[in-house]
Amino acid sequence: MSLIDRPRIAFIGLGVMGRSMALNLLRAGYPLDVHTRSRAKAEPVLAAGASWAERPADCLREAAICISIVGFPAEVRQVYLGSEGILASARPGSLLIDMSTSEPALAVEIAAAARARGLAALDAPVSGGDVGAREGTLSIMVGGEAADFARARPIFEVLGRTLVLQGPAGSGQHAKMCNQIAIAGTMIGVFEALTYAHAVGLDPETLLASIGAGAAGSWTLTNLYPRVLRGDFGPGFFAEHFLKDLRIARAEAQQRQLRLPGLALAESLYQTLIERGGAQLGTQAIYQVLSEPDA
Amino acid sequence: MSLIDRPRIAFIGLGVMGRSMALNLLRAGYPLDVHTRSRAKAEPVLAAGASWAERPADCLREAAICISIVGFPAEVRQVYLGSEGILASARPGSLLIDMSTSEPALAVEIAAAARARGLAALDAPVSGGDVGAREGTLSIMVGGEAADFARARPIFEVLGRTLVLQGPAGSGQHAKMCNQIAIAGTMIGVFEALTYAHAVGLDPETLLASIGAGAAGSWTLTNLYPRVLRGDFGPGFFAEHFLKDLRIARAEAQQRQLRLPGLALAESLYQTLIERGGAQLGTQAIYQVLSEPDA
Repeated sequence: MSLIDRPRIAFIGLGVMGRSMALNLLRAGYPLDVHTRSRAKAEPVLAAGASWAERPADCLREAAICISIVGFPAEVRQVYLGSEGILASARPGSLLIDMSTSEPALAVEIAAAARARGLAALDAPVSGGDVGAREGTLSIMVGGEAADFARARPIFEVLGRTLVLQGPAGSGQHAKMCNQIAIAGTMIGVFEALTYAHAVGLDPETLLASIGAGAAGSWTLTNLYPRVLRGDFGPGFFAEHFLKDLRIARAEAQQRQLRLPGLALAESLYQTLIERGGAQLGTQAIYQVLSEPDA
Repeated sequence: MSLIDRPRIAFIGLGVMGRSMALNLLRAGYPLDVHTRSRAKAEPVLAAGASWAERPADCLREAAICISIVGFPAEVRQVYLGSEGILASARPGSLLIDMSTSEPALAVEIAAAARARGLAALDAPVSGGDVGAREGTLSIMVGGEAADFARARPIFEVLGRTLVLQGPAGSGQHAKMCNQIAIAGTMIGVFEALTYAHAVGLDPETLLASIGAGAAGSWTLTNLYPRVLRGDFGPGFFAEHFLKDLRIARAEAQQRQLRLPGLALAESLYQTLIERGGAQLGTQAIYQVLSEPDA
């Protein structure tokens, strides 16, 4: 596709993930109109050629594609369904892509509201963290119509490497919940193993040499366990965002009479971490809670 | 090393793991005297050239190296410390290698009793399952003296690929406990994710395409999740043996005032599985317990 074919994109949300993704789109030749809550966070993206918009709705004066990646479902609702939101201002035929991790039911609601106004919407949360966002190697889990997924694909190809349509609206969010549920259990297993290792006097590096490549192996063991050994509890992925995801997953599970005791346990452990001031730590800081002696 | 240098080995325990390991030693040129509880299980190994011994002690008439891999700590105790056991019959200077997954404290007890009789002992449990045993690619986690580890190394090289001395007697068992604790949490996460996926109507194969290669990735997700999708709940690794391991780990953790709530949860889930007749199923059958609707 020639540069002239690259449609203008409204891009909302320039946090750790959004900023890197916006820069990748600019580098790939997409003109961007950007908005984020605090303008200071937009500076690197404006310096790279994006235009500033004062309100989310203003991003869509020229653009017919909107990408958002914000923190919490309440912000997603505000951006799309608020009185000055996207749905009130987008031109017919526009494609709205929410890449936040948010509530599946909200994704369904936005898709229905969009359809009622002649717009199309995809939910497309991502996995792969800050590194994946920077390197354009994200896994993008998409819910929506196949034709809209096809329309978004050239953009997704700039942002990620694993691009999968999971099903109708909300399915991208559901897939992301599965991703977080699997991570939650793995995180508990890996950091309980480290807790045990310390308590019995094993050398954790030597232990990793034995267990890292076998049936206990995981991304968490390979990537986060060494960070904890170095005393690095920084994000990575914020504990408070992970807790938000686990809460969404558990609400969905409860609606369906699923028990999921591991998910409930992870939620309580991250809740404890955050009550102790760990909201801005990385998810691996669950080790700090697990490694405390029994009360 | 020429064939003439290969010392005679007493090999006790010819279950799924032991049989493959004994066959690999025979193929590598080690003469074996074998014993196992039911002689029928020894047939493939006898056909490959091993000699039969009626009692564990009889294996050590000529051999000065003993390898055991049996099911439960009570059997380990019987084989080594029983009135007709190995310690009562081994010649001074013999090396005793227990590759069962067993209690760290028992490994320490055997090592001390062995030392008192002029013998050497290693605890050397393995990870890698039936496939690893067959292909000689096990991870072998060793506790004991460095000189004894060096003496055992040529044998370990036949049986495994990742050979690590974890520390003094009992450390191999402790490392294996860490391995099982990490697996336990990962297993819960992976099969709760699958439970959720089914409940919300995602296609589990399509889901795996999104989450398998990212931060949710694990050996369990890659290897056991597809077995469950095929309806294959066979072992692999027996649920009853895994429960035994988790109980040992939890007892050790309790002695040290560690909480390890994920380990406790896994223990209760496998307990439930086994109460329902799942003792001889593979560990992935935890999915059957997790996927039941909430009571």
